[in-house]
Amino acid sequence: MEKKLQELKTRLLEVNDLNSATAVLQWDQSTYMPPGGAAARGRQMATLGRLAHEKFTDPAIGKLLDELRPYEESLPYDSDDASLIRVTRRAYEKATKVPPTLLAEVYAHSAAAYQTWAKARPENDFAAVQPYLEKGIEYSRRIADCFPGYDHIADPLIDFSDEGMKAETLRRIFTELRRELVPLVQAITAAEPADDSCLHQYFPEDKQLAFGLEIIKDYGYDFNRGRQDKTHHPFMTKFSLGDVRITTRVKENDLSEALFSTLHEAGHALYEQGIRMELDGTPLAGGTSSGVHESQSRLWENLVGRSRPFWQHYYPKLQAVFPNQLGNVSLDTFYRAINKVQRSLIRTDADEVTYNLHVMIRFDLELALLEGKLAVKDLPDAWHARYEEDLGVRAPDDRDGVLQDVHWYGGLVGGAFQGYTLGNIMSALFFEKALEAHPEISDEIGRGEFGTLLRWLQENIYQHGSKFTADELIERVTGGPLTIEPYIRYLRHKFGELYPL
Amino acid sequence: MEKKLQELKTRLLEVNDLNSATAVLQWDQSTYMPPGGAAARGRQMATLGRLAHEKFTDPAIGKLLDELRPYEESLPYDSDDASLIRVTRRAYEKATKVPPTLLAEVYAHSAAAYQTWAKARPENDFAAVQPYLEKGIEYSRRIADCFPGYDHIADPLIDFSDEGMKAETLRRIFTELRRELVPLVQAITAAEPADDSCLHQYFPEDKQLAFGLEIIKDYGYDFNRGRQDKTHHPFMTKFSLGDVRITTRVKENDLSEALFSTLHEAGHALYEQGIRMELDGTPLAGGTSSGVHESQSRLWENLVGRSRPFWQHYYPKLQAVFPNQLGNVSLDTFYRAINKVQRSLIRTDADEVTYNLHVMIRFDLELALLEGKLAVKDLPDAWHARYEEDLGVRAPDDRDGVLQDVHWYGGLVGGAFQGYTLGNIMSALFFEKALEAHPEISDEIGRGEFGTLLRWLQENIYQHGSKFTADELIERVTGGPLTIEPYIRYLRHKFGELYPL
Repeated sequence: MEKKLQELKTRLLEVNDLNSATAVLQWDQSTYMPPGGAAARGRQMATLGRLAHEKFTDPAIGKLLDELRPYEESLPYDSDDASLIRVTRRAYEKATKVPPTLLAEVYAHSAAAYQTWAKARPENDFAAVQPYLEKGIEYSRRIADCFPGYDHIADPLIDFSDEGMKAETLRRIFTELRRELVPLVQAITAAEPADDSCLHQYFPEDKQLAFGLEIIKDYGYDFNRGRQDKTHHPFMTKFSLGDVRITTRVKENDLSEALFSTLHEAGHALYEQGIRMELDGTPLAGGTSSGVHESQSRLWENLVGRSRPFWQHYYPKLQAVFPNQLGNVSLDTFYRAINKVQRSLIRTDADEVTYNLHVMIRFDLELALLEGKLAVKDLPDAWHARYEEDLGVRAPDDRDGVLQDVHWYGGLVGGAFQGYTLGNIMSALFFEKALEAHPEISDEIGRGEFGTLLRWLQENIYQHGSKFTADELIERVTGGPLTIEPYIRYLRHKFGELYPL
Repeated sequence: MEKKLQELKTRLLEVNDLNSATAVLQWDQSTYMPPGGAAARGRQMATLGRLAHEKFTDPAIGKLLDELRPYEESLPYDSDDASLIRVTRRAYEKATKVPPTLLAEVYAHSAAAYQTWAKARPENDFAAVQPYLEKGIEYSRRIADCFPGYDHIADPLIDFSDEGMKAETLRRIFTELRRELVPLVQAITAAEPADDSCLHQYFPEDKQLAFGLEIIKDYGYDFNRGRQDKTHHPFMTKFSLGDVRITTRVKENDLSEALFSTLHEAGHALYEQGIRMELDGTPLAGGTSSGVHESQSRLWENLVGRSRPFWQHYYPKLQAVFPNQLGNVSLDTFYRAINKVQRSLIRTDADEVTYNLHVMIRFDLELALLEGKLAVKDLPDAWHARYEEDLGVRAPDDRDGVLQDVHWYGGLVGGAFQGYTLGNIMSALFFEKALEAHPEISDEIGRGEFGTLLRWLQENIYQHGSKFTADELIERVTGGPLTIEPYIRYLRHKFGELYPL
C-alpha cells in the first residue's frame, strides 16, 4: 500500500508541476509579458493544460485510487493520506466523467465566446453574443448531464467551485439574505450620502503601493514566500506553498483602488501561505472552495481593513504619507468615505452592502436560464427588471447591464457567482467565531496587530488546505451549518453606526 | 508525406512549448521569484525538462524522420522543410544516443558538483571539488563515447554547442590567435595604462538603465517583442520569436557594468528577434551555435558599442545624463577608459584583447584533462603556470584561479568555453563583410543609426535561425572558411590607435 500511495503521489506531483508551470506562465502574461508574446503564450498554456489533464485522467490513477480504498478506510478521515486519496478521487471523477471531446468543444466555444464578448461589450451589442450564450447554456447542460443524479441541473456546475453546495440550499440562503438586504439598502440610501471626495485626489502610485505593502506585512503576508506586482485585473496565484503571489492595480485619482485590492488579494494569499507545508505539491495544497477562499479575502479586506479600529491605527500613518491630501480630512470623514453605500450598476465597484444583491441577481438569472424558464433573448429585460426591483437602478444600456461581467461569456453558465456571496457570509461567520475565542482581537486590530487573528485562522481553517469541504469546515469551526445570522449582525452593527437604520 | 511532416511538426511544437515554459520558469527564477519558491521551482523545471526529453526522444519521431528522408532529399538543402528535417535529425541523434540512465547520473552529478563548488569557491577549497571534477571528466568521456568515430574525445562535447567544430581545428586556430595576442598584450601593457577612474563614480541606477534602453532601442531591439529586467548574472532568453527578453545588472559605482551587459545581451536578442517568423515554434527558431550567437553579442557590444564613431554620437548624450560625473571628462578619456587593456585574473572582467587568452587557457586545459595528459590534482598548478606564461599574472589562490568559473563544476568538462573566442573571431569576420557591402555603416554608427547594419545581419545571418551550421553560414557569408585575419586586423587597428604598438 505504501508503494501504491507513493506512486499516486509521484503521479500527482507531475500534474502539480505542470499546473504550477501554467500558473507561472499566466502570471507572467498578466504582469510583464510584452504584447508580441501573446499568441505563443496562449498555445504554450494550452499545451501544458492538455498534458496535465492527460496525466491526471490516466486510468492508472483511477486504478491506484481503487486499490487504495481499503487503506483510506483504515485511516482517520482527517489524516493527510486519507484526505489525499478522498479529495483526489473526487477530482478524478470530475475530470474523467466529462468526455475529452466535449471538453475540447467547450474550450473552443469559450475562446470564441470570449473574443465575441470582448468586442460586443464596448459596442453594446447583445445580439452578437446571444448565439454564444445560447450555445454556452447548452454546453453547461451537457456538462451537468455527465453527472447524473443531481437535484438541480446547476448542482454539478456549482460543485466545480463550491464542492457540495446545492442550488436549492443556495436559493434558500440567498432569499433570506435578500430579504434582509433590500430594506437595509433602502434605509441607508434614504439617508444623507457619504462624501467620498477625499479619496478622489491625486495620490502618487509609488506611495500608494508602499503603504499597501506596509499593511499586508503587518497582516503577516510573508514576502519571503511571495511578492506583489502590477496587473490589469488583480489576482492571487500560487506556484508552490513557498511562492504565493498577489497583484494589484493603481489609480492615482482613487485611493481605494490599489489599497483594498491589495488587502483583498493578501487575504487570499494568507490562506494559501497558511497551509501546512507537508501538503505542498499535493491536491490538498490549496483553498477548499471559492466561497471559503473569498471569505478570507473579504475578511481581511472588509471586516478587518474597512473597520474603525483598523483605521484608528492606520489613518494617522496614511495622513503622514499624504499630508496635503488628507491632513485636513478627519478620521470619521475618511471612514465614512471608504464605507460609502450607494445604489450602483457595476458589481465590481459595489460596496459591502449592495454587493451581494448584484451577485444574487446573476445567480437567480443563471438558474432560470439553465432551467429553461428564461430565454436568452429575454435576458437583457429580465436583468433590467431585477436591478430596478432590488437596487432601484436601471442601466442605460446592456454594456453596463447584462454584458458587464465576463463570466457567462468565457466558460460555462452556472457556478461562477455564488462563491462571492458565500464568501461574504462565511467571512462574518468565521470572524465572529474568532472574536468569541479571542475577544482581544478587536483591540489588537486597533494597534495594528493581527497575530492572534491570523493564528486562529491558520489553526482552524488555513492549515487544512482542501482536506475538508466548505460544509465540513463550517461544521468543524462553528459546530453547525452555514448561516447568514453573523453576517446580518455584522452589517446591521457596522452600518447602523454609520446610518440611521 | 505532407501528413507525416505535419505530425512531426505537431510533436516538435509540443516539445517546444515545454521547453519555452521551462525558459519562463528560469527567467522568473532569475528575476522576480521570492526565495521561498526555490525548492519547488527546481523540481518543476526538472519535471518539464524530463517530459520534453521523453517527448523528443519518442521513437515515433525517429520513425517519422526516417520516413521523411526521401522527401527531405527531394527538396533544396536550404528550404525550410529540408532544414527542419535535417536539423531535427541531428538533434534527435544527439538526444537518443546517450542512454537516459547515464543522463540521469550526469544531472545528479552536476547538481552535487555545483553545490560543492558554490561552497568551495569562497572557501578557496580545491580539494573539496577535486573528486567531483574527476568524476565530471569521467562522465564527459562516457558521454563522448556515446558518439563513436570522433577524431578527438572533446569533439562530441564541442559539437553540443558548436556543431561541426573539431578540437584539432580549434587548437590550430587558437594557437594562431595566441601567437598574435600575447605580444599584443605585452606591447599594450608596456605603455602608460589608461585612466578609467571616470567610470567609477556614483551613477544612479534608474538613469543608467534608461540610457542603456535608449541605445538598444536605436539598435532596433523591438520592445513590443521583448523587455529588460534586472538579475544577478545577465542573460538573454526566448519564449517565442514574439518574446525575446534580456536581463542586466547595475553597479552604481561602475558605469560600464549595466551599459555593456545591456548592449551584449541586446546583441543576442537582435539575433533571435531577426529570425524569420515562419520558423517560430520549430527547432530552427534559434541561433545556430554558441559561437555565432556570441559573435552577435560581441559585435553589438564591442565592435559597435565600444567604437569611437559610436561614442562620438552617444557621449554628449551620456554627459547630458550625468553632467556632474562626466561634464569635465573628454570623449578621448572616456573612450580610452571603456577600452582599457590590462593583465587581469578574472575572465568575465577582462577587456577585448586579453579576454581570449583567458578562454584559450581553459580550452587547452580541458583538452589536456580529457586526453588524460593532465591529472586533476595537477590542475591548479597548470592553471597558474599558464596564466603566468600568457598573461604575466598569478592568482594568489585557487578562488580566483581554477575555481573562478562555474562551467567545469556544473556540467560536463569540455565544449563550454570555445564559443566565447569563436564569437570574437566571427564578430570581426561578419562585421568586415558588412562594411565591405555597405561602407556607409561607419558613418551611420557615428549618427546613432544602425538600420543598414541590422538589415545586413538579418539578411545574411539572423533570418536563417539554425538552418545552417556555423561553418555553412561562414562559407555562405564570406565564401571561405573561418579565419582569424579580420579579427587581428580589427584589434591591431583599434588598439594601434590607442597604444604605441
